[in-house]
Amino acid sequence: MIEYSEFFSDRVKPMKGSAIREMFKRMADPEIISLAGGNPASELFPGDELSKIAGKILMTSPTLALQYGTTDGYPKMKDCAKARAEKVGAYSDGDSIIITTGANQGIDLTAKAMINKEDKIIVENPSFIGSLNAFRSYECELIGVEVESDGMNMDKLEEALKNNNGVKFIYTIPTFQNPTGTTMSLAKRKRMLELASQYNVLILEDNPYGDLRFSGEDVATLKSLDTEGRVIYAGSFSKILSPGMRLGYIIGNSTMLEKIEMLKQVNDVHTPMLTQLMCVEFMKKYNIDDYIEKNIKLYGEKCKAMVDAMEKYFPAGKVEWVTPEGGIFLWCKCPTIDDIAPIVDKCLEKKVAIVPGSNFALDIKAKNNQFRLNYSSAPIEKIVEGVRRLGEVLTENL
Amino acid sequence: MIEYSEFFSDRVKPMKGSAIREMFKRMADPEIISLAGGNPASELFPGDELSKIAGKILMTSPTLALQYGTTDGYPKMKDCAKARAEKVGAYSDGDSIIITTGANQGIDLTAKAMINKEDKIIVENPSFIGSLNAFRSYECELIGVEVESDGMNMDKLEEALKNNNGVKFIYTIPTFQNPTGTTMSLAKRKRMLELASQYNVLILEDNPYGDLRFSGEDVATLKSLDTEGRVIYAGSFSKILSPGMRLGYIIGNSTMLEKIEMLKQVNDVHTPMLTQLMCVEFMKKYNIDDYIEKNIKLYGEKCKAMVDAMEKYFPAGKVEWVTPEGGIFLWCKCPTIDDIAPIVDKCLEKKVAIVPGSNFALDIKAKNNQFRLNYSSAPIEKIVEGVRRLGEVLTENL
Repeated sequence: MIEYSEFFSDRVKPMKGSAIREMFKRMADPEIISLAGGNPASELFPGDELSKIAGKILMTSPTLALQYGTTDGYPKMKDCAKARAEKVGAYSDGDSIIITTGANQGIDLTAKAMINKEDKIIVENPSFIGSLNAFRSYECELIGVEVESDGMNMDKLEEALKNNNGVKFIYTIPTFQNPTGTTMSLAKRKRMLELASQYNVLILEDNPYGDLRFSGEDVATLKSLDTEGRVIYAGSFSKILSPGMRLGYIIGNSTMLEKIEMLKQVNDVHTPMLTQLMCVEFMKKYNIDDYIEKNIKLYGEKCKAMVDAMEKYFPAGKVEWVTPEGGIFLWCKCPTIDDIAPIVDKCLEKKVAIVPGSNFALDIKAKNNQFRLNYSSAPIEKIVEGVRRLGEVLTENL
Repeated sequence: MIEYSEFFSDRVKPMKGSAIREMFKRMADPEIISLAGGNPASELFPGDELSKIAGKILMTSPTLALQYGTTDGYPKMKDCAKARAEKVGAYSDGDSIIITTGANQGIDLTAKAMINKEDKIIVENPSFIGSLNAFRSYECELIGVEVESDGMNMDKLEEALKNNNGVKFIYTIPTFQNPTGTTMSLAKRKRMLELASQYNVLILEDNPYGDLRFSGEDVATLKSLDTEGRVIYAGSFSKILSPGMRLGYIIGNSTMLEKIEMLKQVNDVHTPMLTQLMCVEFMKKYNIDDYIEKNIKLYGEKCKAMVDAMEKYFPAGKVEWVTPEGGIFLWCKCPTIDDIAPIVDKCLEKKVAIVPGSNFALDIKAKNNQFRLNYSSAPIEKIVEGVRRLGEVLTENL
């Protein structure tokens, strides 16, 4: 018998399957209403349009679609990413762009290009588990900074920078953060850039949800406010076109991106050609902003339906939340209890799935009284029914 | 001014853009005949078939094609990979399968799951630069073992195993190796498995070309001969369907693959859904072996055309090669000189591109009198003309 664990690298020894994924396995029951995932609404996917586009590309340009492509991306796809980035000031003259197989790849490889064992990354706490686990896979130390309703606490960020040597970068989802749904204020963004400059660290700005604002005013991206070339920007087509196509991009200083490109070369060589070509054609033939507008309208309605149902069914005064102005997540806190875990299990018995906050915390083992709800995926009637079931469990247990 | 190199991880500091890619940039000249790349023949790509398939999938199953998928792959795509593997005995009961975004991703993440800094990997010398650079990105030590016309020298492999602690695995492309085109004999395969068992190391078998045999007899895969679960097998659809679709797979012990799946989860979350669904439909509607047969026939003809031209145009007795029985590469040695580099430059002046052997060597700076030719990509008349130009340069310089 081979003892495979002898062959494991140190980096994978502590890695465990995500608890969210374990929960998804328990969710195979079709009666369960899931408010747990992070899927965008599938009801608006432009299947007919993409069907015609894919058919035509493969008929007229089979070699382009099926042969090897270049690691940094198909040039016209890079132009599409640039166009999206320019709308939010996230492309500067001299920047490089790499098309990635989903934004997660860009985040993973950015960390790989910078992180030695025991280097440090400052992250929002809580934050997106996919990025946290990507960072952990390079054996770094993660330093969490509390997220408030207007983004990271800047005093605590400064403290973290002051008290830690070896911080390479700050990772932030400043707009409609996952999991909290909160948006960092303009003042805090400016302060973060000042601090990054003062302590000479870079910033990795992850902005998959920035286009999905249904109320309030846009806040400038960190990348657009950056005058020093300190921000690396990760963008995505997952929430504005299709997550299954796995199209993201990374923009930043060309010296850094050259290294990231080499890591992509040895990772997946290049992002599949057909999906890149389909995105280019979709953006050429249709106005993607019209399509995004439809999604925004739907997400605004779904979010309102969720919040209305929460106000109706949740036990009064026992659950706190900040109503989001965009994105796809809503974050709740139950200040009268220590640990939401037993309630999450009871929810599954009542056929509704939510994600306990511990999944997004740096210390996943600590007791946590928060949970994340998603409103983009389920249809409105399921959202209302799911919140009703959840409200029943909360009423009984809070 | 930010000094970006201060932020680089140690792993990327020594990484340089591949010399092959630099050469490809110089090859923008359309008059240059390239015998340098590794592209499969595009003239046989089933564009019409895949056009209909993609159009239908997106029309009838837009949610499946465009929504998030699972990290290990779409279940029917896993069945397709399993079916391909079973044809060469590369799937055993209890094995796991992960669909990867090209086989390179599987190779990269297998190394990531096993390699700590300063661990060792034994590789064929020369070998595929994409894998070597993926391994180097985990700061391991590569130990090269000479490749003979029937595969790795087994005495030298044993010596390498005996003299080195910390070897985690042996990486091999046993069939139609890149770059040498050679195939490891059955006896050597059995010996490699014995040695792996004796010294308790794993084997990563990379088999992208195994289906492309146009003469001689098939040799059993290492995976099929493995009775201990010591072999991890990387398969690919790049050379039998389309490289631009980026579809590969990895098969092996489930304890190891569970870790690799977690690394894929944080790398690209999952391989794009549409390309997976297209492969499934293609294999359902058509006999992929018929399609592969057409490729084999074409590659056999192209290889013969190349060898015939080499015999006609190369200076007699000055260039040595082993005529391949399959795959896409032909490896040449010029024993009367030390260094092929000046000749490669002269070839570019004469509008024919070849890859110097140094690109595939562990010591890329050492003088090298070998070069790699590819016969799958160019049409036959270009192959003949390319070899004629190459013969002119060789005749003048050898």
